[in-house]
Amino acid sequence: MPDISLNHLAVVVDSLDEALVFWRDALGLAGTGGRQSIGDEGVDVAFLKLGDSRLELIQPTAEDSGVARYLAKRGPGLHHVCLEVSDLDSKLQALRASGVELINEAARERDGRRYAFVHPGSACGVLLELYERI
Amino acid sequence: MPDISLNHLAVVVDSLDEALVFWRDALGLAGTGGRQSIGDEGVDVAFLKLGDSRLELIQPTAEDSGVARYLAKRGPGLHHVCLEVSDLDSKLQALRASGVELINEAARERDGRRYAFVHPGSACGVLLELYERI
Repeated sequence: MPDISLNHLAVVVDSLDEALVFWRDALGLAGTGGRQSIGDEGVDVAFLKLGDSRLELIQPTAEDSGVARYLAKRGPGLHHVCLEVSDLDSKLQALRASGVELINEAARERDGRRYAFVHPGSACGVLLELYERI
Repeated sequence: MPDISLNHLAVVVDSLDEALVFWRDALGLAGTGGRQSIGDEGVDVAFLKLGDSRLELIQPTAEDSGVARYLAKRGPGLHHVCLEVSDLDSKLQALRASGVELINEAARERDGRRYAFVHPGSACGVLLELYERI
């Protein structure tokens, strides 16, 4: 396993159902795990298999969510990239030492997964999520 | 090898040199093949290893290029996704039959690589490139 790999690539969509008609039914990506509601983020998501990584489709379900504002401002499209690293704390420390701006200065945890976001201003306009590999 | 896999994820940047300072030097992605000039597209590109796929960094070098116009309008950030399929002609035919709008109705070829682009209007705002696996 390399030190860094792609966990998922996320796309914001108007409608999960319509997105699945293209990405799953027409293009042929296999679904993994069905649709999930993440209530506290105001989104529904679905994951499709993309080789060794995954495509995450995100539909906002609450008008005041960050993703809903993103969709209203920029329209549907590529939203963020999530890379897996073997040691998240060391990676965050190295990034800070290089002057990289982090959205989360320290790793956060959700459902047993440690993660942090790098600010797009330090990553060529890309919203970059980092996962610790489990 | 799955029917569909990720070949690369492309990011438009203001400066390849500055982009490499983040993605290669600070984050730690390994370079693959150095910087290449694609004169007829008015861009310089560099590829970094991203697990089994690659991150493509694209810097426009001609003001009238499509990528330069994209950068001027939207700023740096995620630009396109390139998936590999085992049989490109069959995939394009299936997509057309599903009502998907293609930028290239038939596969094109460059440097021995057959490819075609799907219109973002049919792919949730994502500019999607399809490669035939070689």
